[in-house]
Amino acid sequence: MQGQRIDVVSVKPYPVFLGARLEELGDYLTTRIGAGEHLLVITHPNVGDYYLDTLQKGLGSFMVNTLIVPQGEDEKSLDRLSDLTSEAIACGADRKTVVLALGGGVIGDLAGFFASVFMRGMRYVQIPTTLLAMVDSSIGGKVAVNHAAGKNLLGDFYPPLAVWTDFSTLETLPWEEMLNGLAETIKHAVIADEELLSFIEKHQEEIMARKPELYKELSSRSSAVKVRLVSEDETEQGKRMFLNYGHSFGHALEAEVAYQGITHGQGVSIGMVAAAHLAQERGLMSSGEVERLIKLLKGFGLPVTVRAKNPRVLTDLMGADKKNYKGQKVLVLPKGIGQGIVIRDANDEEILRAWDKVIE
Amino acid sequence: MQGQRIDVVSVKPYPVFLGARLEELGDYLTTRIGAGEHLLVITHPNVGDYYLDTLQKGLGSFMVNTLIVPQGEDEKSLDRLSDLTSEAIACGADRKTVVLALGGGVIGDLAGFFASVFMRGMRYVQIPTTLLAMVDSSIGGKVAVNHAAGKNLLGDFYPPLAVWTDFSTLETLPWEEMLNGLAETIKHAVIADEELLSFIEKHQEEIMARKPELYKELSSRSSAVKVRLVSEDETEQGKRMFLNYGHSFGHALEAEVAYQGITHGQGVSIGMVAAAHLAQERGLMSSGEVERLIKLLKGFGLPVTVRAKNPRVLTDLMGADKKNYKGQKVLVLPKGIGQGIVIRDANDEEILRAWDKVIE
Ligand SMILES: NC(=O)c1ccc[n+]([C@@H]2O[C@H](COP(=O)([O-])OP(=O)(O)OC[C@H]3O[C@@H](n4cnc5c(N)ncnc54)[C@H](O)[C@@H]3O)[C@@H](O)[C@H]2O)c1
Ligand SMILES: NC(=O)c1ccc[n+]([C@@H]2O[C@H](COP(=O)([O-])OP(=O)(O)OC[C@H]3O[C@@H](n4cnc5c(N)ncnc54)[C@H](O)[C@@H]3O)[C@@H](O)[C@H]2O)c1
Repeated sequence: MQGQRIDVVSVKPYPVFLGARLEELGDYLTTRIGAGEHLLVITHPNVGDYYLDTLQKGLGSFMVNTLIVPQGEDEKSLDRLSDLTSEAIACGADRKTVVLALGGGVIGDLAGFFASVFMRGMRYVQIPTTLLAMVDSSIGGKVAVNHAAGKNLLGDFYPPLAVWTDFSTLETLPWEEMLNGLAETIKHAVIADEELLSFIEKHQEEIMARKPELYKELSSRSSAVKVRLVSEDETEQGKRMFLNYGHSFGHALEAEVAYQGITHGQGVSIGMVAAAHLAQERGLMSSGEVERLIKLLKGFGLPVTVRAKNPRVLTDLMGADKKNYKGQKVLVLPKGIGQGIVIRDANDEEILRAWDKVIE
Repeated sequence: MQGQRIDVVSVKPYPVFLGARLEELGDYLTTRIGAGEHLLVITHPNVGDYYLDTLQKGLGSFMVNTLIVPQGEDEKSLDRLSDLTSEAIACGADRKTVVLALGGGVIGDLAGFFASVFMRGMRYVQIPTTLLAMVDSSIGGKVAVNHAAGKNLLGDFYPPLAVWTDFSTLETLPWEEMLNGLAETIKHAVIADEELLSFIEKHQEEIMARKPELYKELSSRSSAVKVRLVSEDETEQGKRMFLNYGHSFGHALEAEVAYQGITHGQGVSIGMVAAAHLAQERGLMSSGEVERLIKLLKGFGLPVTVRAKNPRVLTDLMGADKKNYKGQKVLVLPKGIGQGIVIRDANDEEILRAWDKVIE
């Protein structure tokens, strides 16, 4: 195999292969589960059209079935889980079956959750095909479906057998989807890797020109940050929380419009800026550092402000965050560039002031 | 605390309190999770009527909400899981909330599965109130819901914080429900505890006269067998399989009538006899041992034969067992009285002959 392997520390450790090739997964699987086993590929119609043939090329020695899930966040649901269950039984799946989740975060979260509960747990492989899935959702074992009462409300911590990342799949990814992953990548840089931030600044134009050579470096470094943080803290008691930087503010923005009309990347972008302002007020960031972040986000066309919002409503929405504890908002702030800090004593006044800084 | 504590070996070890008192759970919880936490009791209407007040007596220092689930196996469903999710959110539950599953196996399996997936996992306590739940379903961390495509098809291995067993709750349990638990208790005796079988034989009349003094000994010994087997083998690769004795044949009988008109205990009872006949044919049991088992079951009014069934259909239904591997039926047989054995080479002919022995 070309590329790079990093191992995630976990109750059940697993390797992340960065720069692997879809058609070589079969060879790898033979060494892990033996030939002849039953595989269940779960993917979207478009991702399947692009990549199923390539993937299947390497799977000749297995029994393979494919389940197609329509696109969209709405498919991360109990209803779809129930459908997958019927379909899996119909094609003879049992607890020895291995699921291959081929797609972005929606497929990874849904197929991973399905694998975690079907017959009390099958093995599964994450095969991320969006930048966001590569650097974020495929790593760390978090799987979930949404519920009317909240996003990702039902789920599990369920480590995959392996994460198999083929950067070449990014070549077909729409730019808007790239931006969602870039927002997370910038987040990783700000909370844990100053060099990565410099790298992105230096190569911003080439990234925007979508030069494939850059995906490897960008994605590998960003994935490495996630691997490091989840390895130190699998069940999210400590450092893994840093990954929530930008998300408490961002989720409030997304929730306020019921996840319509604002992308996750846009929410995180504005959220990171708001949290940076709060960090500045607390003396954790200089104004120069905040400006550096704003400039980079703007350069990619990511928003750093939002129009006509009520800061009080947004602050209240932050009260619903799963990470809050006993009514106290838990926030992640950058500490300069390259470090994070978790604060549990934020008061609504400073949060309101942070919102004011990003509301036009 | 009076009673007895045994600890289950597990990735997350937990204590089983046998002969505890409902009203003392609060004191124990204070030592485990601290006072003031949010508790979510999940129970049935009738079980709630009988025992909620007693339970609540000890919970004064906690914030308590109660969710009532209608009775019946049908409630072990994704739909009910979804309802519990909405209700839990409405009463402010979060991942720090502790679920108390007060009821039989239906409540334990459903509330336990809910606890395992809500916000990726809350803690929960099993408070079994049926004999079956005390000696079987509350121990071992298996939780699940049913699906149109199969019983217990979606679930998890998710150890509870503790199992809190108050034998006095058995006093209101209908005799038919007692029988379901007795069938499992006899199963435990046959595969792992000859002394328990002698105890049951000796006290059969008192058990049938429902003398509460006997529940303690009966239930404790039977629970201890389950604790021992799951401690040796949490995820069911080896000895835990013994617990499946009587169930491969029994599930086929239940499935054939779509779980209507035959109780689980009746299915297991006939199933144990069928498997015993197969064991005898293989020289694993003497005819005297088979007779001893039949006599005991009959004495309780448990069926040991069934009328007008097609053995071929039943044998085919056994092919759908989750425990089968690559089309090969996996069976548990007794080895004399007090030991079990897993066989993976049973052929359909001997299975058919075993069916013939129990079909009138
Ligand atoms: N589990 C975690 O730790 C975690 C972390 C972050 C986000 N998430 C979840 O991830 C989800 C978002 O994931 P996402 O941003 O990847 O969105 P997505 O999975 O919806 O993918 C975005 C779109 O890109 C398409 N697509 C995917 N790969 C493609 C390719 N190579 N070429 C062309 N089109 C392609 C998909 O069909 C889809 O329409 C959310 O549900 C979020 O909750 C999970
Ligand atoms: N998780 C496991 O390892 C495991 C093992 C065996 C069985 N199970 C599951 O357990 C379930 C069966 O459990 P069950 O036999 O306890 O049935 P159940 O939970 O349906 O309870 C039987 C009936 O007894 C009533 N009841 C409960 N406690 C009572 C009390 N103290 N007094 C009066 N009435 C009471 C209930 O309301 C119910 O109507 C099945 O769904 C089965 O799949 C799970």
